[in-house]
Amino acid sequence: MVYELYYWPEIQGRGEFIRLALEEAGADYVDVARRSERSGMGTAAMFRFMDDEAVPCPPFAPPFLKAGDQIIAQTANILLFLGPRLGLVPEDEGGRLWVHQLQLTIADMLVEVHDTHHPIAASLYYDEQKPEALRRATEFTVSRLPKFLGYFESVLARNPAGNGWMVGDALTYADLSMFQMMAGLRYAFPRNMQRIEPGYPLLVALHDRVAERKRIKAYLKSKRRIPFNNDGIFRQYKELDA
Amino acid sequence: MVYELYYWPEIQGRGEFIRLALEEAGADYVDVARRSERSGMGTAAMFRFMDDEAVPCPPFAPPFLKAGDQIIAQTANILLFLGPRLGLVPEDEGGRLWVHQLQLTIADMLVEVHDTHHPIAASLYYDEQKPEALRRATEFTVSRLPKFLGYFESVLARNPAGNGWMVGDALTYADLSMFQMMAGLRYAFPRNMQRIEPGYPLLVALHDRVAERKRIKAYLKSKRRIPFNNDGIFRQYKELDA
Repeated sequence: MVYELYYWPEIQGRGEFIRLALEEAGADYVDVARRSERSGMGTAAMFRFMDDEAVPCPPFAPPFLKAGDQIIAQTANILLFLGPRLGLVPEDEGGRLWVHQLQLTIADMLVEVHDTHHPIAASLYYDEQKPEALRRATEFTVSRLPKFLGYFESVLARNPAGNGWMVGDALTYADLSMFQMMAGLRYAFPRNMQRIEPGYPLLVALHDRVAERKRIKAYLKSKRRIPFNNDGIFRQYKELDA
Repeated sequence: MVYELYYWPEIQGRGEFIRLALEEAGADYVDVARRSERSGMGTAAMFRFMDDEAVPCPPFAPPFLKAGDQIIAQTANILLFLGPRLGLVPEDEGGRLWVHQLQLTIADMLVEVHDTHHPIAASLYYDEQKPEALRRATEFTVSRLPKFLGYFESVLARNPAGNGWMVGDALTYADLSMFQMMAGLRYAFPRNMQRIEPGYPLLVALHDRVAERKRIKAYLKSKRRIPFNNDGIFRQYKELDA
């Protein structure tokens, strides 16, 4: 099975949570929009698909995944689909729901990260909503960021398996996503993260442990990993990191 | 199986999507926080559970559901769990993923509805973020609302079964959630909805069809249905409905 991932080619964004799962598993996949238009791919292929009124199950937005005849959208839903196929979830239903629950909480947090720089509308430039962004980012770094990190730290602390993963005794897609969240937060809020990170030793250790996975390490060094930049969800605006 | 739902007792909020599924199925459930504290329930029971550090799989926030030994949080995840048990999803995996994908898109839309009145922080009062709310609500009603409704209308139009449900030829939890979204939008944005609703005849018909389901109809008339109010996600602030 060759998976086809469709996502914006110039940002990590939500697509990165899928890329990390595919990379960790060594899955065979094509990052369609990053390929050339000459080859029939590129963003043109993504738009062609999104504009196709014959598609019975249309995605609202990228990312979406083609797996044979199936088309699946919504980041957490794609991971729900891929989890058992890539060996990134426990065997039991309860464990799988717990992984998915964590993923959905990471997704909620991600929206709040995004809205620190776009509190009014994603369709407007950052410069058009800067005063609001300053206010929202302050609320985020002072109140929401510690609340979310404290929650995920407690998840790690309470895991009965107790060997550093979020669910059970093996890596799941929630761990990969948590790694991405920590990496993104360090990029977007370096001063705040430096200040508060010592309070979350298990999350820091989880980040490092994922970064050292053989395939993830190779991926992070490769050109397939798009660098963080100020078009993505995690953006480095100094004024928002007071 | 008696399901125990834990959610804020004075609002529909996210809990309502779960209540509608349980009601449609005629499931045996207790809305714990709405019961008396004397009986050992009420919000005290909810907080007791959330503060209990011995819980290995803690919820980040309500709603959460207890089903025997299982505790499941995140609205969409609870519906993922309940769907097959309550007969509110198709039999096949592809169909179930499609229902879940729609639910997650409804959840995304719901966050945007919430943020029309709380664009800066949920922890602040509406009055403390009114100028920002006016701006965000305008962006929402002008741009995002028609985009989301247009998407869901196209989902109904494209369903090959073509008999009025979103997925396949039978009602799913996504239909119940879409009903709730339409009802909430009518409450929060009556002027805008009156103006644009004629453009979404399939969504209006879906709303009416769900409202006429025998059990849903009885539920909506009962005291179990908390009326819409200005503490919930859908709020009626005239100035935000320009």
